[in-house]
Amino acid sequence: MQTIIVIGIGAGDPDQVTVQAVKALNRVDVFFVLDKGEVKQELVDLREEILRRHCGDRPFRLVRGRDPERDRSAGAYAEAVHDWRRRRADVCGELIERELGPGQTGAFLVWGDPSLYDSTLPILEDVLARTGITFQIEVIPGISSVSALAARHRTGLNRVGRPVQITTGRRLAEGRPGDVDDLVVMLDAHNTFAELDDPDLEIFWGAYLGMPDEILISGPVRQVAEQIVAARSEARARKGWIMDTYLLRRRTET
Amino acid sequence: MQTIIVIGIGAGDPDQVTVQAVKALNRVDVFFVLDKGEVKQELVDLREEILRRHCGDRPFRLVRGRDPERDRSAGAYAEAVHDWRRRRADVCGELIERELGPGQTGAFLVWGDPSLYDSTLPILEDVLARTGITFQIEVIPGISSVSALAARHRTGLNRVGRPVQITTGRRLAEGRPGDVDDLVVMLDAHNTFAELDDPDLEIFWGAYLGMPDEILISGPVRQVAEQIVAARSEARARKGWIMDTYLLRRRTET
Ligand SMILES: C[S@@+](CC[C@H](N)C(=O)[O-])C[C@H]1O[C@@H](n2cnc3c(N)ncnc32)[C@H](O)[C@@H]1O
Ligand SMILES: C[S@@+](CC[C@H](N)C(=O)[O-])C[C@H]1O[C@@H](n2cnc3c(N)ncnc32)[C@H](O)[C@@H]1O
Repeated sequence: MQTIIVIGIGAGDPDQVTVQAVKALNRVDVFFVLDKGEVKQELVDLREEILRRHCGDRPFRLVRGRDPERDRSAGAYAEAVHDWRRRRADVCGELIERELGPGQTGAFLVWGDPSLYDSTLPILEDVLARTGITFQIEVIPGISSVSALAARHRTGLNRVGRPVQITTGRRLAEGRPGDVDDLVVMLDAHNTFAELDDPDLEIFWGAYLGMPDEILISGPVRQVAEQIVAARSEARARKGWIMDTYLLRRRTET
Repeated sequence: MQTIIVIGIGAGDPDQVTVQAVKALNRVDVFFVLDKGEVKQELVDLREEILRRHCGDRPFRLVRGRDPERDRSAGAYAEAVHDWRRRRADVCGELIERELGPGQTGAFLVWGDPSLYDSTLPILEDVLARTGITFQIEVIPGISSVSALAARHRTGLNRVGRPVQITTGRRLAEGRPGDVDDLVVMLDAHNTFAELDDPDLEIFWGAYLGMPDEILISGPVRQVAEQIVAARSEARARKGWIMDTYLLRRRTET
């Protein structure tokens, strides 16, 4: 039986890899990488840095596939993502079939934690469901950008006995959920926080968490929104890309 | 300046400690432990196992304080917890003042990730705010039981572009939040999932995640609720304690 390990590698700091992940890396025969031909060379470098540091001089193969383009013009976000996943599944299925020998172990390295806004698991399920290929899946959890954000701001995500919700910038733009006062926002390309005119709202914002260019800003949204917007656009222009996440916390009585 | 490091150590598997946490462990002069005089000897053992494995033969001190009792009879949960935190802050403040020398580094080991339902950070903030003691705080994120749960069930927490909420059993008992279809429940002592009579609801349940006694059960709530209730009460009786977490997922059109 072949095995595919989905390994969470943390969200930017190469030391935020677990001992379990390091052990897993050392059982892998073939690493699969979907290459976006990306501007984010730093992210590619980080993956390679992790392999170099933790795989020592063990032999392994690194196999690259061409990541299909996502249709960003399409209106329906979820459908565009589903379609994209199907095409990625086709690419992954081919790679696995062609490159993984009998009894061998393959791996996908996943940014942050594989459980948060990542398509590797659904893609592998899709490969299993739609092709004749069989393999077992193992998942190694990783430090998510959400945990990294909270740690860097030295704050909890939830308050005593209260919930926390993790959502996307796109969702937030449609309105704040009514029943939570602690909200983590990922995948926000549009500074959605800056639209929120609530005097009781605090923000804990972080970009490039765990990386040399890390930026942290926090305070009442009304006071710091402009500063974040400026820092964000300056950094984005300078580096060509940005990844940022934030916690919104509404001040309440208790 | 003195430093206190709050170190996330994962939720049960000693290999789910990060390289960053291991490096931090090795900078610590004094480990502080609030002793609950607890039945959960396994959890105490796990902490010591982590120190043994990762601190090698480096000298360090382990200082124990007596954890004050929480008033479990009090009606208002949040207030009882806040009061308990204040009393714990008093104990911690005294320990730090008495045991940590100038320029030294102390640490608290935190179960899972320090950002989720943990009081170490608020307690340290309280010590800083109410006493004359000063120190800087550093936080090392850890693998939470939520990430561990998702990994063991090989599933994501959220679906494409959709939110996930993390809440408590107590909250769930007051009603399911209206706007999320993926809900993680922690701190549920009362099998609250078994009250939910929704044919579209799936559960991914895990107890003692990452530990030798780990139990995983998943399926439609209606079909597996009884099995979980039975497994839970059997395990709890046998071991004297239980820690379990679950993801509730409502099946939807897309
Ligand atoms: C496709 S999601 C993947 C999340 C990832 N699985 C995790 O656990 O962090 C990408 C989003 O994660 C967040 N993110 C990932 N890495 C980050 C970092 N180093 N700093 C800030 N945000 C980050 C950003 O919100 C980004 O839009
Ligand atoms: C006080 S909270 C602390 C959570 C911790 N900070 C974390 O990140 O997992 C304790 C709750 O976490 C969950 N939990 C912690 N460890 C667990 C484990 N090994 N297996 C299942 N649930 C666990 C349970 O829901 C338990 O009631």
